[in-house]
Amino acid sequence: MTQTAGIVGGGVIGGGWAARLTLTGWNVKIYDPDPEASRKITEVMDNARRALPMLVDHDMPAEGELTICATLEEAAQGAALIVEAVPERVDIKRKVYAQIEAVNTDGIIASSTSGIMPTDLQAEMEHPGRLIVGHPFNPVYLLPLVELVAGEKTDPKAIETAKEIYASLGMYPLHCRVEIEGFLSDRLQEALWREALWLLHDDVATADEIDAAIAYGPGLRWAQMGTMQTFHLAGGEGGMRAMLAMFGPCLKWPWTKLMDVPDLTDEFVNKVGDQCDAQAGDLGPRDLERIRDDNLVGIIRSLKGGDWGAGRVANTHQKALMRIPGAEHPMVTQRRVVPVDWTDMNGHMNEGRYGQLFSDAAEVVMAAVGADDDYVASGLSYFTVDTTVKYLAETHAGERIEVHTKVTVGDGKKLRCFHEMRRVSDGELMATCDQFMLHVSLETRRTCEPADHVRKKVEALASAHAEG
Amino acid sequence: MTQTAGIVGGGVIGGGWAARLTLTGWNVKIYDPDPEASRKITEVMDNARRALPMLVDHDMPAEGELTICATLEEAAQGAALIVEAVPERVDIKRKVYAQIEAVNTDGIIASSTSGIMPTDLQAEMEHPGRLIVGHPFNPVYLLPLVELVAGEKTDPKAIETAKEIYASLGMYPLHCRVEIEGFLSDRLQEALWREALWLLHDDVATADEIDAAIAYGPGLRWAQMGTMQTFHLAGGEGGMRAMLAMFGPCLKWPWTKLMDVPDLTDEFVNKVGDQCDAQAGDLGPRDLERIRDDNLVGIIRSLKGGDWGAGRVANTHQKALMRIPGAEHPMVTQRRVVPVDWTDMNGHMNEGRYGQLFSDAAEVVMAAVGADDDYVASGLSYFTVDTTVKYLAETHAGERIEVHTKVTVGDGKKLRCFHEMRRVSDGELMATCDQFMLHVSLETRRTCEPADHVRKKVEALASAHAEG
Repeated sequence: MTQTAGIVGGGVIGGGWAARLTLTGWNVKIYDPDPEASRKITEVMDNARRALPMLVDHDMPAEGELTICATLEEAAQGAALIVEAVPERVDIKRKVYAQIEAVNTDGIIASSTSGIMPTDLQAEMEHPGRLIVGHPFNPVYLLPLVELVAGEKTDPKAIETAKEIYASLGMYPLHCRVEIEGFLSDRLQEALWREALWLLHDDVATADEIDAAIAYGPGLRWAQMGTMQTFHLAGGEGGMRAMLAMFGPCLKWPWTKLMDVPDLTDEFVNKVGDQCDAQAGDLGPRDLERIRDDNLVGIIRSLKGGDWGAGRVANTHQKALMRIPGAEHPMVTQRRVVPVDWTDMNGHMNEGRYGQLFSDAAEVVMAAVGADDDYVASGLSYFTVDTTVKYLAETHAGERIEVHTKVTVGDGKKLRCFHEMRRVSDGELMATCDQFMLHVSLETRRTCEPADHVRKKVEALASAHAEG
Repeated sequence: MTQTAGIVGGGVIGGGWAARLTLTGWNVKIYDPDPEASRKITEVMDNARRALPMLVDHDMPAEGELTICATLEEAAQGAALIVEAVPERVDIKRKVYAQIEAVNTDGIIASSTSGIMPTDLQAEMEHPGRLIVGHPFNPVYLLPLVELVAGEKTDPKAIETAKEIYASLGMYPLHCRVEIEGFLSDRLQEALWREALWLLHDDVATADEIDAAIAYGPGLRWAQMGTMQTFHLAGGEGGMRAMLAMFGPCLKWPWTKLMDVPDLTDEFVNKVGDQCDAQAGDLGPRDLERIRDDNLVGIIRSLKGGDWGAGRVANTHQKALMRIPGAEHPMVTQRRVVPVDWTDMNGHMNEGRYGQLFSDAAEVVMAAVGADDDYVASGLSYFTVDTTVKYLAETHAGERIEVHTKVTVGDGKKLRCFHEMRRVSDGELMATCDQFMLHVSLETRRTCEPADHVRKKVEALASAHAEG
């Protein structure tokens, strides 16, 4: 059955909630007094419709209905979940709850506040048991985290129901068991943010430099392990206890503005160490290091596609390492290690990646005949028409493989390659690919003759390989 | 020409430097008095040899020589770069520099210190001009960031040379122009870390919960944009200025322990706003949102492979959305959106990903005939022998596509499928794949007859599709 949510506030957060809810099949009624609200919400929806379905390797449910309401009451009426996403002022939020309560007595009311305590929010409510904090992170339609916080008068059942709802939206509900200003995530974020403001204020660094100090280093770690587990691994074999022994004294040094730090008594060191051990569970430091490394490889590789941040650094490095083969036979068109993001759950190289490897090999052939980036930019290229791949042996992440390519046809518009994929260590043949390409104009999207210098090189390669 | 580096200290950081340097072709001489040093360094090298080459889509240079030295002097002698990675004590570090200076007068000496000022480190040196801080991040062989800091007596040429060296190692050298304790990255990290210690100390949350508050939310953002650009986008159309207007008052609230904050004067707000605008350059908020979203999609998708963190959440959600088709014809074996990590630089779906889509379609066929996860766990499966793909039309990230599959042969060990990939919006045929599979025993890796219940379903599908 389709469920209905009401949302009060249509800014970045309210609009983000509307997007996540409708795209997972909820009907949503949203209210915002801003005359520009409808346009702004539509723009968030456009972003979300583009991005969220890409996360999933299946079809998404049918999108729910989104209604932009003229009044707050209309949005709240009959909703099983009412999301409050208005400015961070207790007086405004309390007024919103009163208006909701006038028309809806049983829906869960979830405040998106970044740090106001739910006990303060629910103080004047008639049915305060249903008020929770459900604190999301921008962009709400992509980031899984939502912090759940109960106030003194919150019914524990409301937290349990909210957990189920958020999980069904593809989110990670984190129950913050102790009520505290800023909850967990914003206390950590605010500490970093306040320090960043000081660095900028004192002209120690610019906004861009402050961001680089995160995005090219610690931020890559934080996308997959928090600060505790990260430092647990910084301690090497001794884990967090060794880390505290090494860097504990630095806590007394002015390495940040926050100089009020807990004393590293034996008792506290053991408490931190025990909790990091419990967090690791059965995974020893070496296991966690491998998991961390695989995650980092995957994250950095994912950033290579958009040539952004750490991905741009990796692309620059790899460009410096690339070499274009000559006309030797066999022509080595790929030599590389199977990366972890090419493998399935069992660690085998996924069937589809064989095709990618041969496609990469063909790009090296193209570069070798002068059909390089500049040539493509001039509006000419080769398109693959068909490929036949034969799978002969399995391979795994970390194995070094190479592709030997023979140009079997190089005649006018036609370019045909026969690729052999081999393991470098023993030369075993793992797969072959017969690939047929045609030269095209990128403007007309139709076949055409290649430029003279390319045609000559293609012909030369084909005749060299015919003799080889 | 192969260059030589000396490393003093073979822990997590020194070992990480040894790995990055040797794997990019440097000869490395390393010294550590720890009797276990050799074993520990070998273990870091093993991790690095496995992970670093996966970052690059080409071959790495030939690995340099790694020599474990019996004395510090031996490691330092003749090295163009001497990396110091010993404990965070000024007295120990100064003693190391004196020993280095006795045998090496012109190599750059780069301290890995996390926050001690280079002016303090170089105070007693004979040739202090060559002392810099080159602060890396664990794991050094994967994370690109290295902070460069000059002391009062550092020769600016040493910083320039170091920048070139680090870039050639595939790193991102960030020159911290103002010398300050903790530099940039650790000031930000320490603020967060000290706050985290308080949360654990005060029993507000466990280590695992503190980490979840980062890794499922803010950490995913920090892997690609720092806190400044992230909050620039949190401000919606108004950017950082709107964000400061909204959340500025919260800086006075106890949302973190760090209560000493800069005053948000108009002048300071403009300074922050101007720098965030400069950082964005030509990119408007909508452009940056799309870049951020593409990055987040890629990062979360990269974590799906290892079923870790945000990737595990996405996998759980997608499992709940999956449906196994019946014997209808056409059998819809895939319906999904082309994700951004499937596209090349031009936004077209990469040739190789067609193969992956058809491979995913075949897995749905297998699930439909009962050759599901449990069946595979029991030691039986289908392996693809060959595929022929015909490419008929291009597609882009965000397009909704589906695969219609016909089982053309289902006879004993043989399973043959004909897949058609179509655009959902207009039904256009974009590619076809003729896929031949054989049933195998995962134990012997040889063909064998399928289990009865699978054989019957395969035969039933084949005969239903023959009539269809």
